[in-house]
Amino acid sequence: MSGTGRPTVVVIGAGTIGLGWITLFLGHGLNVRVNSRAPDARSVVAEGLRTFAPTLLGGPRDPEELLERVTFEPDVARAVEDADIVQENAPEDLALKQRLFEIIGASAPDKALLLSSTSTLLPEAMGARMADAGRLVVGHPFNSPHLVPLVEVVGDEGTAADAVSEAVEFYRSVGKVPVVLRKPIARFVANRLQSALLQESIHLVREGVVTMEELDTVVTQSIGLRWSTIGPFHSFHLGGGEGGLLKWLSHLGVGLETSWAELGRPRMTEETIASLGGEAERLFGAKSYAELARERDRRHVAVLEALEAAAGPGSAG
Amino acid sequence: MSGTGRPTVVVIGAGTIGLGWITLFLGHGLNVRVNSRAPDARSVVAEGLRTFAPTLLGGPRDPEELLERVTFEPDVARAVEDADIVQENAPEDLALKQRLFEIIGASAPDKALLLSSTSTLLPEAMGARMADAGRLVVGHPFNSPHLVPLVEVVGDEGTAADAVSEAVEFYRSVGKVPVVLRKPIARFVANRLQSALLQESIHLVREGVVTMEELDTVVTQSIGLRWSTIGPFHSFHLGGGEGGLLKWLSHLGVGLETSWAELGRPRMTEETIASLGGEAERLFGAKSYAELARERDRRHVAVLEALEAAAGPGSAG
Repeated sequence: MSGTGRPTVVVIGAGTIGLGWITLFLGHGLNVRVNSRAPDARSVVAEGLRTFAPTLLGGPRDPEELLERVTFEPDVARAVEDADIVQENAPEDLALKQRLFEIIGASAPDKALLLSSTSTLLPEAMGARMADAGRLVVGHPFNSPHLVPLVEVVGDEGTAADAVSEAVEFYRSVGKVPVVLRKPIARFVANRLQSALLQESIHLVREGVVTMEELDTVVTQSIGLRWSTIGPFHSFHLGGGEGGLLKWLSHLGVGLETSWAELGRPRMTEETIASLGGEAERLFGAKSYAELARERDRRHVAVLEALEAAAGPGSAG
Repeated sequence: MSGTGRPTVVVIGAGTIGLGWITLFLGHGLNVRVNSRAPDARSVVAEGLRTFAPTLLGGPRDPEELLERVTFEPDVARAVEDADIVQENAPEDLALKQRLFEIIGASAPDKALLLSSTSTLLPEAMGARMADAGRLVVGHPFNSPHLVPLVEVVGDEGTAADAVSEAVEFYRSVGKVPVVLRKPIARFVANRLQSALLQESIHLVREGVVTMEELDTVVTQSIGLRWSTIGPFHSFHLGGGEGGLLKWLSHLGVGLETSWAELGRPRMTEETIASLGGEAERLFGAKSYAELARERDRRHVAVLEALEAAAGPGSAG
């Protein structure tokens, strides 16, 4: 613990993901030390707080006030030397992460919990140059980390069980919904699921069944709405009426396999990429990234707050 | 038009989907004639209205009051003879629907708009025994039709263009969000997308990466939330930061094809179906279908109202 008695979280990297974590951790009263080699790290973080603090759950926060609990240390070894928790957000480059965790492992206290936001790498690989990678755990967030509840917690064979449970406890303490993967798998769960849907989405747009805009409308106005409220299995269980999922699956049975075989297999040629990129630019290009992100996050807040209210004790319908 | 000047919609079939449509149409002030051969059709509809009317958008409605605008006619030919619009919800049986639309085509006024809730059949096939199937259009809703906005509007080569545009106009008039498919495709768009996600969901549960409950949590706490607010292309466009979807796709490029090739291909054996069905029963079986459906619909209302409020003029953030 730092001198104030609050845990000190060291956030490595101040890109989009790092800034989301910084905002979330500060919003929950933690002290944050930012490790970034950017010479303007302080102004980058100040700007990030101005962007994200208005959409913190539980109400907007004053970014200037949050900034008072941030310190900056551009040297990794010095940044982590009294860390309670490290959340690493370096680029998805295995050699780079291995070097980083080698330094972190040698410099952080033995009891420090080491978390990585990686979306593709596993602890064993990232910790290959550490004396002991047992306290290195993947904590993979979704964009925006300060707002979207899920964090996928992933260990592998060499990971200490108590490091995984500490990671779960830590993420819960800052309002996240951690899900521990029971075995490691490439690209984890949520990205695999969205990748499966993206494949068919690209197929349908490339085949001219719907435009990109229409595809997005189909999703938000049906399955997106549904899956924000109940998950796919819960939903298909209801699809079976009184007989539940068993009836639904028995009814469709092998027909499901047939329908899966008929899903599209688009080729990601340069022409396809250029065509989809151009269509997205026409659809969304009139607004800046910051403006689109603010709109998205404002809607996320609205939905999360509505679901929380609907789940509340006074809402039994 | 019927004598009251309000359009008369004939709803064929009073199962779950039919009851949802009946509730929606009544809630928007239309007269509804129900064609059902069930001897207790009136009490089935009364019960359906008691179930669905509390979750009508715009506020709950009195089911008894709605019931005053319903008439019943068990004979199909007589039911449709002065119809303005027919919404058909018979079981997914091609021969049955062909016989139904043969009768409907011979008995309904020439100007009547003929809509089918089918999730798998196309107008040409369903209308094979009609003198003219040009005014037969698919209007495929999602469960619950009175609540989930999407309706997929599908014609094929023989469909009259003005029938499609009248269908769009009609569905908009009752608060739906119609999306017209630009070409017919098996199982339309939304079911293909959810089928793609289901395939990978079953794979991940069967592989023991997560339980069914954890899979549902992953979805509701990440991509479900996200896709209730913005669609997948919009979302991936933001994933590319300032460079948008073009940058995101260029960065991943052929890697996407590799990741798609690694998605699961579960076999729907009897053992798999029994295992998944049993897990769902353990998860959800303590509550009745009606109770689960009410909870789902209450959350749908909460999210839809929150998104509408967030999109309102006073919400610019």
